[in-house]
Amino acid sequence: MSDIYDTIMDLARRRGFIWPTSECYGSVAGFIDYGPLGSMMKRRIEDIWREFYVIREGYYEIECPTIGQEEIFIASGHVKGFSDKMCQCPRCREYFRADHVAERAGIRGASTMDAADLARLLKDVPCPACGEVLGEVEVFSFNLMFETSIGPGSQRRGYLRPETAQGMFTDFARLLRFYRDTLPFGAVQIGKSYRNEISPRQGMIRLREFTQAEAEIFVHPDRKDHPCFERYSSYRMPLLGIKQQQEDSPAVEMTMQEAVDSGVVAHSFIAYFLALTHDLLVTIGVKPEKLRFRQHLPDERAHYAMDCWDAEVFSERFGWVETVGIADRTDYDLRAHEAQSGERFSVFIPYTTPRKERRIRVVPRMGALGPRFRDRAKSIADAMAAAQPIEGGFSVTVGGESLFISPDLYDVREEEVEVPGEDVTPHVIEPSYGIDRMIYAVLEHSYVEEVVRGEERRVLRLPPRVAPIQAAVFPLMNRDGLPEIARDITRALKEDGIMAEYDDSGAIGRRYRRQDEVGTPFAITVDYQTPEDGTVTLRDRDSMEQVRVRREGIASLIAGLVRGTQTFASLKAP
Amino acid sequence: MSDIYDTIMDLARRRGFIWPTSECYGSVAGFIDYGPLGSMMKRRIEDIWREFYVIREGYYEIECPTIGQEEIFIASGHVKGFSDKMCQCPRCREYFRADHVAERAGIRGASTMDAADLARLLKDVPCPACGEVLGEVEVFSFNLMFETSIGPGSQRRGYLRPETAQGMFTDFARLLRFYRDTLPFGAVQIGKSYRNEISPRQGMIRLREFTQAEAEIFVHPDRKDHPCFERYSSYRMPLLGIKQQQEDSPAVEMTMQEAVDSGVVAHSFIAYFLALTHDLLVTIGVKPEKLRFRQHLPDERAHYAMDCWDAEVFSERFGWVETVGIADRTDYDLRAHEAQSGERFSVFIPYTTPRKERRIRVVPRMGALGPRFRDRAKSIADAMAAAQPIEGGFSVTVGGESLFISPDLYDVREEEVEVPGEDVTPHVIEPSYGIDRMIYAVLEHSYVEEVVRGEERRVLRLPPRVAPIQAAVFPLMNRDGLPEIARDITRALKEDGIMAEYDDSGAIGRRYRRQDEVGTPFAITVDYQTPEDGTVTLRDRDSMEQVRVRREGIASLIAGLVRGTQTFASLKAP
Repeated sequence: MSDIYDTIMDLARRRGFIWPTSECYGSVAGFIDYGPLGSMMKRRIEDIWREFYVIREGYYEIECPTIGQEEIFIASGHVKGFSDKMCQCPRCREYFRADHVAERAGIRGASTMDAADLARLLKDVPCPACGEVLGEVEVFSFNLMFETSIGPGSQRRGYLRPETAQGMFTDFARLLRFYRDTLPFGAVQIGKSYRNEISPRQGMIRLREFTQAEAEIFVHPDRKDHPCFERYSSYRMPLLGIKQQQEDSPAVEMTMQEAVDSGVVAHSFIAYFLALTHDLLVTIGVKPEKLRFRQHLPDERAHYAMDCWDAEVFSERFGWVETVGIADRTDYDLRAHEAQSGERFSVFIPYTTPRKERRIRVVPRMGALGPRFRDRAKSIADAMAAAQPIEGGFSVTVGGESLFISPDLYDVREEEVEVPGEDVTPHVIEPSYGIDRMIYAVLEHSYVEEVVRGEERRVLRLPPRVAPIQAAVFPLMNRDGLPEIARDITRALKEDGIMAEYDDSGAIGRRYRRQDEVGTPFAITVDYQTPEDGTVTLRDRDSMEQVRVRREGIASLIAGLVRGTQTFASLKAP
Repeated sequence: MSDIYDTIMDLARRRGFIWPTSECYGSVAGFIDYGPLGSMMKRRIEDIWREFYVIREGYYEIECPTIGQEEIFIASGHVKGFSDKMCQCPRCREYFRADHVAERAGIRGASTMDAADLARLLKDVPCPACGEVLGEVEVFSFNLMFETSIGPGSQRRGYLRPETAQGMFTDFARLLRFYRDTLPFGAVQIGKSYRNEISPRQGMIRLREFTQAEAEIFVHPDRKDHPCFERYSSYRMPLLGIKQQQEDSPAVEMTMQEAVDSGVVAHSFIAYFLALTHDLLVTIGVKPEKLRFRQHLPDERAHYAMDCWDAEVFSERFGWVETVGIADRTDYDLRAHEAQSGERFSVFIPYTTPRKERRIRVVPRMGALGPRFRDRAKSIADAMAAAQPIEGGFSVTVGGESLFISPDLYDVREEEVEVPGEDVTPHVIEPSYGIDRMIYAVLEHSYVEEVVRGEERRVLRLPPRVAPIQAAVFPLMNRDGLPEIARDITRALKEDGIMAEYDDSGAIGRRYRRQDEVGTPFAITVDYQTPEDGTVTLRDRDSMEQVRVRREGIASLIAGLVRGTQTFASLKAP
């Protein structure tokens, strides 16, 4: 049974998009190589992501190591909680994710069951590998972080990061200073993350080493209105809220303003990133009709998250695939690192005008303290001044010793003080993108088979900005000086930073087909008219139409067509 | 003692170039974070590298996982040989690289000594940490690869790659097909590599996780003339050959043509990449007077390498630092993977005209074989046809059994055959760049302190293409509509992909200084003339000169200045 996934992966292998990794040694599940065209396409998608997040939104990129020390992941909860339930077939010794085996066998809700329940239910289920009934199978937790040790003598345990996010949290204090102590600010990271999946069997969809693009935006907990919301307030897109899921009804099209006003989305900061994500995914080539935003149900949402949405992309093989997550993670992450490290993760926010507050405070009577406590009098007085007065005396701890302070040792005074501002622990808005899944979705959505003049044509209708090769250059014939001109044009294009490919092998039709299959948007052909009048033909991949254009200036023409500042249609006008 | 390294690292920390990693937990030696400006600068340098290697040279980039299975590194020799000699102080339990401790103590040639000799010599050396004499210290090998296991149950051992190169070797067969079976071709990779250094103490110079940019170029072993050598044949640069090192004389300036003709460099393929590397390093901001190319001495060169050069960059703190390595690695890597995997790593190279060769071959007499061997006759005949005829009969092995073939069973015939070509194992030319060291060198070389009108000015004279922020935009005053205009200009610049930063805080002089310190090449100031005539001032970082330019078109002006297609000087002409 061959479906579009097989077709795409076959094309990807043949043409150098995606290769099995270290194939000569038998490739390892959960790892892939990006070949020459795949790697180029990946970089173009990452660069579009940067245009949205870094240049436009102004959230600078940082780059933290992929190996992190243990403390980070104790704080983040990954050491304790980042695991899947696993079982091993007692017969064939194969390992499986216990919930996946249960779900395949029609057991519902397996993903939220505990180990004992799962083990009980798996008793009568056959092993997916050898087919024997699993019987008395043990179900246990397997931590999904890759572990290693840093330095000699296993001195220090390290983990390969399971997400890039933690780097933005541990750098919080430095980032805050970089952004001159004002909220909101954000930082992003694009890089490798790792999950030691138990038994990954879904190709590019479930990788052990994958690329994430994550933004962590630090906002004031009481100010979750996005300052530029008007950019996307009338942006309309399909939302599958909690209500629609509970009623089993389809996603509802609405504007972001409507989504916020009706309370479907928690606030405009989240709504802004839902729309931006839709915008970005469509820009890279995800088909809008195969894209929806699904809200997490209360029982699947992390306990600390306030609102959480997944951008889901439809795949003919895999169904709706979670590709981007957008969450309001509240102050959970910063508080966790605060507790683990003992450092403060807060911002001092000055009030617009300092607030006057009445305070009751303890004023130590030094005349009484001195004779009684001698050289400890000063530190006891300091401790007293920080204490809340209680009628009839109170206790303070000085140098580890608890001392009772009787009422004769102090006065109580009520005063008015000026409070200039307050320390605030920011909340975190996190859009988190899975780059590899985005690439797969774009390949699947852009692949078209069609019949043109009785011949089959396979095309990747990639957006020109995403196509790995931007222009192909062909000499019509392999003689009479045409190859030399075509090579000159190729060189000129490259000098202007355009990824051009020269090809003189085989019939011209075959060469077009070869480029169509890898999504090259434009092809330039040098023919016998070229040496005469300095023009070449320029062919558009999607319409297959051709126009004659002048050879000079072709680099800036192609650059404009790729960037979208010029259209092919406009070239046809006389 | 504070030197330029401390000054640079202080600036880098304060302004967001380089940060200690996960500082709140006590950072780990050998790991750094690139902050907002450092990460931006790093990407710009990587993109310039890509312009040289991917776009211009046409060596496509690939992206392989950072975790590799064990077989790869058995083949590459890293499992067995990628180690440093280590010792542990018996008193304070601190670990050290044994050769470094010995060298610090004035013992020469420590890096090539064996463990026993090192241990003997270290007996009287004091521990660099606690100061006690090391005494009976053990010296042993420590493998520098980070190890992990893939999947549950420690099923499969994996290593974090110590170099990106192996990915290009294991993908050789796929790459060969991608390049349609012709030599030379090449592939590159930019990505993280890992070395679990025993005790790294040199900041950005010795990292446990670092970024490499490597190219592996596969060439015909007999054709090491670079096809485009004329591009660099008259490029002149300092070479410190084996002879100069043996005579303790300084590097000699010569052209690449002279270097090849005189035999200083092995062949023009290596010479081409020496010059390209010089060109690239100077483009990103390495000072030519602090750059030299040093040839490996016969005893430091890997046994398989034919010729090997290091681009060394001078640092005031670290002296000459190896930053790029350029080597002819012969067929060592491909043969090693061939032996380990059992696959062929060769290219079929057709002869220009097929060669005629005389061959003597065995022709089985089927009439005699049939009756004697019955249904085995066919397979025996096949085995005979592949054998070399020996007078008086010979043996063949069929189905595991050795059979003597007597002369009555065959004829010997001499014939002329056409041989269309031959299988060739390519040689590998490898330029390998350490991106982090390049970044440090550029920071150190571009840092200038000067006194301007009695005030100290600190400037990073980064090439505009490398500077993280490309343009700063200032309103002269924080009122009268100037901030709004400045914000509009910032937005317009960003929309054209220019990294612009708006700043309205503090006196204008302070704002200029702030941008000078991070290397921002151009600053735009909106003043009271702007609303009147639509002009702004444009200031050049290095000359500190200002010109008035029109506000419209400023984005493409800045873009031209950054790319170098326009000069600031040309703007001053009336």
